[in-house]
Amino acid sequence: MFRARLAEDAALVRARLIDALPKSGPMAAPMAYAVSGGKGLRGFLVIEGARMLGIDPDGACFPAAAVEAIHAYSLVHDDLPAMDDDDLRRGQPTLHRKWDEATAILVGDALQSLAFELVTHAEVGPAEVRVTLARTLAEAAGARGMVLGQALDIAAESAAAPLTLDEITALQAGKTGALIRWSAMAGALLAGESPEPLRRYGEALGLAFQIADDVLDVEGDAAKVGKAVGKDANANKATFVSLLGLETAKTRAAELVDEACEALLPYGKEAETLRQAARFVIARDA
Amino acid sequence: MFRARLAEDAALVRARLIDALPKSGPMAAPMAYAVSGGKGLRGFLVIEGARMLGIDPDGACFPAAAVEAIHAYSLVHDDLPAMDDDDLRRGQPTLHRKWDEATAILVGDALQSLAFELVTHAEVGPAEVRVTLARTLAEAAGARGMVLGQALDIAAESAAAPLTLDEITALQAGKTGALIRWSAMAGALLAGESPEPLRRYGEALGLAFQIADDVLDVEGDAAKVGKAVGKDANANKATFVSLLGLETAKTRAAELVDEACEALLPYGKEAETLRQAARFVIARDA
Repeated sequence: MFRARLAEDAALVRARLIDALPKSGPMAAPMAYAVSGGKGLRGFLVIEGARMLGIDPDGACFPAAAVEAIHAYSLVHDDLPAMDDDDLRRGQPTLHRKWDEATAILVGDALQSLAFELVTHAEVGPAEVRVTLARTLAEAAGARGMVLGQALDIAAESAAAPLTLDEITALQAGKTGALIRWSAMAGALLAGESPEPLRRYGEALGLAFQIADDVLDVEGDAAKVGKAVGKDANANKATFVSLLGLETAKTRAAELVDEACEALLPYGKEAETLRQAARFVIARDA
Repeated sequence: MFRARLAEDAALVRARLIDALPKSGPMAAPMAYAVSGGKGLRGFLVIEGARMLGIDPDGACFPAAAVEAIHAYSLVHDDLPAMDDDDLRRGQPTLHRKWDEATAILVGDALQSLAFELVTHAEVGPAEVRVTLARTLAEAAGARGMVLGQALDIAAESAAAPLTLDEITALQAGKTGALIRWSAMAGALLAGESPEPLRRYGEALGLAFQIADDVLDVEGDAAKVGKAVGKDANANKATFVSLLGLETAKTRAAELVDEACEALLPYGKEAETLRQAARFVIARDA
């Protein structure tokens, strides 16, 4: 039931995203490649947060596609040789392996621009709503959000000592947390309601998601995960698992899921899908 | 007089941009480096187009800083080894030479996000104006604008035949034209007036600018230009000069400046600064 809803929303969001891509010229094929695959969790959170507050998916799918465009750009740039140097993503060659580095840089750049075209689209709603979504998305993506997380991650690689738990929490709050938090809040921004409960939900969910990712890197099956596993341990990199131990990390993730669900109490049973999403992020095998 | 105004506006815009940068952490220094130097022509066009239509520079400097952020990001990414592989920019080491490639990728990414924070800032004006500025800036920067121009430029390097005049005009309409056109139009969007005359001005100005750039690559002094010259001829690359010849290229640029000035007729003598800007782009030595 939950997985069907996730797949359905992801398909809706991907269709919106593909519709917005150039249909010809040198950017068409690599941009389409960059947005294929993936679970679509961020877009799903936008759609379902909005639906919970009475906003139709037809309007919500634009900001949902926007955050998926930002996420896709970040993956394409992260995979570059100068960054994580990955050959495989979602079970397929990374973009710079299939095309080349220049194309991967440009595809990431263009996807970021596209996100701001999508989030400001006339069908999203009143101008005030669109401008709030654009501004908060820019903050979440930029040098105080996702890019800061990336930069801290890269700095950690050449640091003398492994990161502490506080440092890795700050890093992840940017790297994966900022977009997940924005995705969770977007529905409230669309509905013109206070985003506070959904912000708390998104905050806890984002951290649970990252701990689950670290657990998957230890316990996961590379074929299912669609990328190399065991990379963190091989790189002697501090993770939630290396700092907390496997069992404590899992317990902490489960506590965060409880926190996320508690934040949804004001919404009663309308929030059931978002509760299932919180449970899903720590139960997934990919 | 004109140069003083250009320098004054550029200082105002740069101050706004620097104010918006992170003040600490790994992104602070390289982002500040990326936005230092440069003539600030795009931001100047925003400020002066707005001033001509009665909009105060205090509001206009946010979108002006936004387009300078996009321009700065594009230079940082263009200079990367996988792209143009340049060591020198504005007379200084390029960002990836001073830091490293990963930092240059992230700085470019963060500057693009920052542009959308700036253009949606509350002080810019009503939400409807801000959302129009954000949406048109995203279109100008993305896969149908600046990034498309970049991609066509890269594709041309491995093409069997040199580009034709039509192809190089299309390439430049994206690569440098899209942002210059947006900058010229932004004042009208801020004022809530029809952007058509300024769009025509920006269109002609952008093309004149690029022809002048190609002329500088042949005639310029590397010390003044602040980057390597003669690169195009060495790379056996089609340019307006190689296709038209030096004198015809200069004549064409002068005609375009006349076209740009004609487009300003509706604004009478209020447009004098923008007319001077048009003459400046083909008379500059750097």
